[in-house]
Amino acid sequence: MVYSREELLDIISAQMPAKRWGHVKGVMETSVILANRFGGDPVKADLAALLHDLAKFWPIEKQQAVMVENGLNPELLKYGEQLLHAEVGAFIAKKEYGVEDEEVLNAVRYHTSGRAGMTKLDKIVCLADYIEPGREFPGVDKIRKLAEHSLEEALIAGFDSTISFLIEKRKTIFPATVITRNDLITQLKTLNTTE
Amino acid sequence: MVYSREELLDIISAQMPAKRWGHVKGVMETSVILANRFGGDPVKADLAALLHDLAKFWPIEKQQAVMVENGLNPELLKYGEQLLHAEVGAFIAKKEYGVEDEEVLNAVRYHTSGRAGMTKLDKIVCLADYIEPGREFPGVDKIRKLAEHSLEEALIAGFDSTISFLIEKRKTIFPATVITRNDLITQLKTLNTTE
Repeated sequence: MVYSREELLDIISAQMPAKRWGHVKGVMETSVILANRFGGDPVKADLAALLHDLAKFWPIEKQQAVMVENGLNPELLKYGEQLLHAEVGAFIAKKEYGVEDEEVLNAVRYHTSGRAGMTKLDKIVCLADYIEPGREFPGVDKIRKLAEHSLEEALIAGFDSTISFLIEKRKTIFPATVITRNDLITQLKTLNTTE
Repeated sequence: MVYSREELLDIISAQMPAKRWGHVKGVMETSVILANRFGGDPVKADLAALLHDLAKFWPIEKQQAVMVENGLNPELLKYGEQLLHAEVGAFIAKKEYGVEDEEVLNAVRYHTSGRAGMTKLDKIVCLADYIEPGREFPGVDKIRKLAEHSLEEALIAGFDSTISFLIEKRKTIFPATVITRNDLITQLKTLNTTE
């Protein structure tokens, strides 16, 4: 079944509290701005942002059930509950909402942890999730400032803030987050060496 | 060839500057204290500590050559130069100095990154390396304080300080360090739940 953007707005907003829906609208708006700023595709950015948190407010048992029943990334199940909704969201977007664009689905799938070799669309949605206007956390203004000129610099600062937060809260750190951050640092070094 | 402890003291101290040898003696002393405090084996702790940095001041090309020629952990070669000496040290301790005790060799091998499922001896040497009397870095006194009652608490704080330092310096973070820290946090949670 394929839905129009208008239908998806209704379906997705109905699955979350008003406050989280405000966040989703913020990520959509910011993703489009970033896509225009950095030469990304604003239509895909808008769609991926609309979809990115579709499963965020599903009961955790339902998210876990989708993961297990469909054999999705078992590594994620070891690392708490905050990471499942991204994988589940990409799965549901394809299976239930008829989204076939793998670029969009990957941007949903990797919006929390990132991945080594992030595409531009991955970066846009992940960064928009950090800096949409409703976000308030220590260091967010620094990340917004960096986002004026570099997706990668801003994302590294975003992941740094996540890792530091997890250290402070004595929570486990998903290794993929560190691998993503390492990869972005290496990308920037290579860029600066070859320019 | 098997060497006596006295011979190893001479052989190893000859391969590093006096200041680093002072560090090694500090790690030996602290490892023995920690072994006695936490029910470890002080003789093994002393030997592993003596060996732990044997390759630290070898030229990096020599360390890399040992890694490549002997097919040692290729993952390490991707993560800068600070991690090789631990793997190379364990290899040389066995091959050149006749150390056969795998517990001791593993404590040398994992003294920098740790590993999931660290043994008590691994923990002792890794922690002693953080807190021997010559060490001075922000937070070391907090780690020393934690080491009075818990190897694991102190090690988590040690790895936290390493990760925070790497973030501050914008350096890549070895994923094994994060996996080790996650494992220690999980161990402590399990311990606290079952006690």
